[in-house]
Amino acid sequence: VLPGESTIYLGDTARVPYGPKSEETVRRYALQAAEFLVGRGIQALVIACNTATAHAYTTLADALDIPVLGVVDPGAREAAETSPTGVIGVIGTRGTIESGTYDRAIRSFRADADVRSRACPLFVSLAEEGWVSGDVAELTARTYLEDLVEAGIDTLVLGCTHLKPLLGRVVGEGVRIVDSADATARATSWIVAPADPGSGPPTREYYVTDDPRRFEELAGRFLGASIEHLGHVEIDG
Amino acid sequence: VLPGESTIYLGDTARVPYGPKSEETVRRYALQAAEFLVGRGIQALVIACNTATAHAYTTLADALDIPVLGVVDPGAREAAETSPTGVIGVIGTRGTIESGTYDRAIRSFRADADVRSRACPLFVSLAEEGWVSGDVAELTARTYLEDLVEAGIDTLVLGCTHLKPLLGRVVGEGVRIVDSADATARATSWIVAPADPGSGPPTREYYVTDDPRRFEELAGRFLGASIEHLGHVEIDG
Repeated sequence: VLPGESTIYLGDTARVPYGPKSEETVRRYALQAAEFLVGRGIQALVIACNTATAHAYTTLADALDIPVLGVVDPGAREAAETSPTGVIGVIGTRGTIESGTYDRAIRSFRADADVRSRACPLFVSLAEEGWVSGDVAELTARTYLEDLVEAGIDTLVLGCTHLKPLLGRVVGEGVRIVDSADATARATSWIVAPADPGSGPPTREYYVTDDPRRFEELAGRFLGASIEHLGHVEIDG
Repeated sequence: VLPGESTIYLGDTARVPYGPKSEETVRRYALQAAEFLVGRGIQALVIACNTATAHAYTTLADALDIPVLGVVDPGAREAAETSPTGVIGVIGTRGTIESGTYDRAIRSFRADADVRSRACPLFVSLAEEGWVSGDVAELTARTYLEDLVEAGIDTLVLGCTHLKPLLGRVVGEGVRIVDSADATARATSWIVAPADPGSGPPTREYYVTDDPRRFEELAGRFLGASIEHLGHVEIDG
């Protein structure tokens, strides 16, 4: 969406997943991550994690002097504005769903929305295992989504995006899929000033808090491309 | 196994799972955890985690002045000594299996053992979701164990114990299950001096690094009993 911009990515791979962790712990970890990125000179911060957005968005937006964008509002808004009937499903980690953040965000854009949420903690593990299709993934998705489909949702917001093609098949063609990652990327273009055309080609830097080699494998699978500028950092303590 | 002994348990719930993390990170976390427990006056340490044992046993045994027991050797020894044919299966997290620790340990007790290993990272997530039986768990178990059963294992060492009843059904009656947790509890009795009969009833203290409430739910499910003396501690930094 912003091909001219440079990006600096930090994955807190030594402490993921954030999904099952408490609000207080996630907020502490998110502040440490943001401090590292601000120290690298970023002009805007995207909290590219639903759990961290749910638990730490307000804290980070208050603490930092740069624009901060969470991953919840863009998807919530797209779903609220495009759902024909207002019956909207939301799936995500336990932390995201139990916080009620999507529910509140969708109803802030559409007061009469009927939001049906379901925590789907196994999807992250399935994606990391590479089981993004096949019998186990499909049966897991059907088990999780059964109640939402029966409730008549016409739109499903993906708070976790790793299994998108499979989830589309499971809910069927009548249900629109809103990918919070896509919606957030588009929203980022509203808060970032265009890159100076004379500033040279953009760079993509990646940092992780655990061993970079394992990340390199996963990144290849998720991004469909190999990554350059990959480094290890410690952000705790 | 040691009903008269007091225990102090530390769960690093803010940073679990250790399974997918690198050796260096797991070693750093395990040292922080051991320092906390030694500070509480323990007389022996059980590393009750296969990944931490695989990556950090030697480091902890060298660093501490008290007996240290990992969870790998007891199960490996029981399997090596009781397997009729020596064709032994091992399952565990990615870290446990990729380290080759069980393979080496089993062959140290029985040089001609034919060890077949399989990383099963989804089992932890299934157990935490409470899906310890049912279609998804069973299909996942069959997918993971297919090759081991076909290889003719007569003994299966559980490096992760949460799905024991299900795994027993999946491998069938011809395969002995060795639970590394049970074997470790028995081995602990060799390294701990009997409690002084005059020292009063034993205590069971639990500490976690994330919010204790979530742990209380899971502990109830796993232990089949509610827990007393539960506290929150921070061990990083």
